[in-house]
Amino acid sequence: MVSKNQIKLISGLHQKKQRFANQLFFAEGVKVIQELLQSNFELEHLYTTLNDFEAVQSSKRTLINEQELKKISALSTPNSCLAVFKIPAEKRIIESDLILALDDIRDPGNLGTILRLCDWFGIKQVICTKETVDIYNPKVVQATMGSISRVNVNYIDLNLFLAQTKLPVFGTFMDGENIYQTNLPEEGIIIMGNEANGISAEIEKTVTSRLSIPRFGELQKTESLNVATATAIILSEFKRNS
Amino acid sequence: MVSKNQIKLISGLHQKKQRFANQLFFAEGVKVIQELLQSNFELEHLYTTLNDFEAVQSSKRTLINEQELKKISALSTPNSCLAVFKIPAEKRIIESDLILALDDIRDPGNLGTILRLCDWFGIKQVICTKETVDIYNPKVVQATMGSISRVNVNYIDLNLFLAQTKLPVFGTFMDGENIYQTNLPEEGIIIMGNEANGISAEIEKTVTSRLSIPRFGELQKTESLNVATATAIILSEFKRNS
Repeated sequence: MVSKNQIKLISGLHQKKQRFANQLFFAEGVKVIQELLQSNFELEHLYTTLNDFEAVQSSKRTLINEQELKKISALSTPNSCLAVFKIPAEKRIIESDLILALDDIRDPGNLGTILRLCDWFGIKQVICTKETVDIYNPKVVQATMGSISRVNVNYIDLNLFLAQTKLPVFGTFMDGENIYQTNLPEEGIIIMGNEANGISAEIEKTVTSRLSIPRFGELQKTESLNVATATAIILSEFKRNS
Repeated sequence: MVSKNQIKLISGLHQKKQRFANQLFFAEGVKVIQELLQSNFELEHLYTTLNDFEAVQSSKRTLINEQELKKISALSTPNSCLAVFKIPAEKRIIESDLILALDDIRDPGNLGTILRLCDWFGIKQVICTKETVDIYNPKVVQATMGSISRVNVNYIDLNLFLAQTKLPVFGTFMDGENIYQTNLPEEGIIIMGNEANGISAEIEKTVTSRLSIPRFGELQKTESLNVATATAIILSEFKRNS
């Protein structure tokens, strides 16, 4: 059974403010929870409707029914389980290899998908503006499919960071150099811009190498790519020859 | 003002069955509607909270208030307008160039993003299993950002089609040939599989060329890419040298 206080706590964790105050977040579904249990994340408590997760010590595991799960879940059709984890301390930025910089990504699904891509392509470091959606947002956690534990994410003054980095800074623009014909290095920072507005004017000033993804459709019509699919194409290009 | 009958009709169009029965679908938001108005789609009726879209004849345009929009909208935060369009007759399949085949894509956001990608990369033909989500689903229409008018989509017996095509058939699998090191032709059919199960066993038998997208992260851990981001990487590879 889940107590009223627990319901109140977990419902609060749907909001960023409460996640920050409690230094807790939650994940749902067997697959994602299992990935997080195998990571460095520390489990606070697991709620499950099935008698599974036997490896979790019983004091940290509560059997609940589906009505109770519905009360604490962020999903419209809840999975069988929900686990609350401690938010780990932010680690130092690893300023080497390829770094992905996010300039105000607002959609949780996009951020989650981007983290999953980083994990696939071995990108260990993501830096975000403070306006970028919180990685511990339930929809982000869900979309990462567990990758959240394998990518280091820092929320910083991105402008300041980019202004003083020694690494080359890449951004994609309509007038940039064809990414398919550019020699891409193994080290550098790749900036992805906001869903509606792209890379902001301030951040654009720090870009040392302007790239573009060529379009093959009717030129004047297809306006843009979704930011997660653009990230996929760019990371694939940076990595394909390495 | 929007009448009770109109509300009933449009609410019905949230469901596939009613869209099919009425041969109508709807789109929301100025950008998407404007794209569709410029396409071959025939407008049935436009509902807007602003006095915009002056180019649309007044008999097909109704000024409504935000409460009325909320009643007919599929969005949690409705935009300023909603337009009902006629579903066009299905065109014949263009069996040349690159064709994307979708084997039971279930998520509307994924399908919409994939159609937007096809438009970007100049893929004119998409063929889907009948179990793939309907392209006139409001969430698909929204995610395409207007691209829906520029890609020909057919729902067919995919297995039968693939069994008799003369084009090479590509699929991505864990054990496939590294896509970055494969000579990819300008003609062929690329199959993308279901979000949870990948390419089905029956469809897999029709594949003539097995490809794989290499992973660069911790090999045993990152399980998969989201189907839309995988499509982005694959289409980029097929097109980058053309």
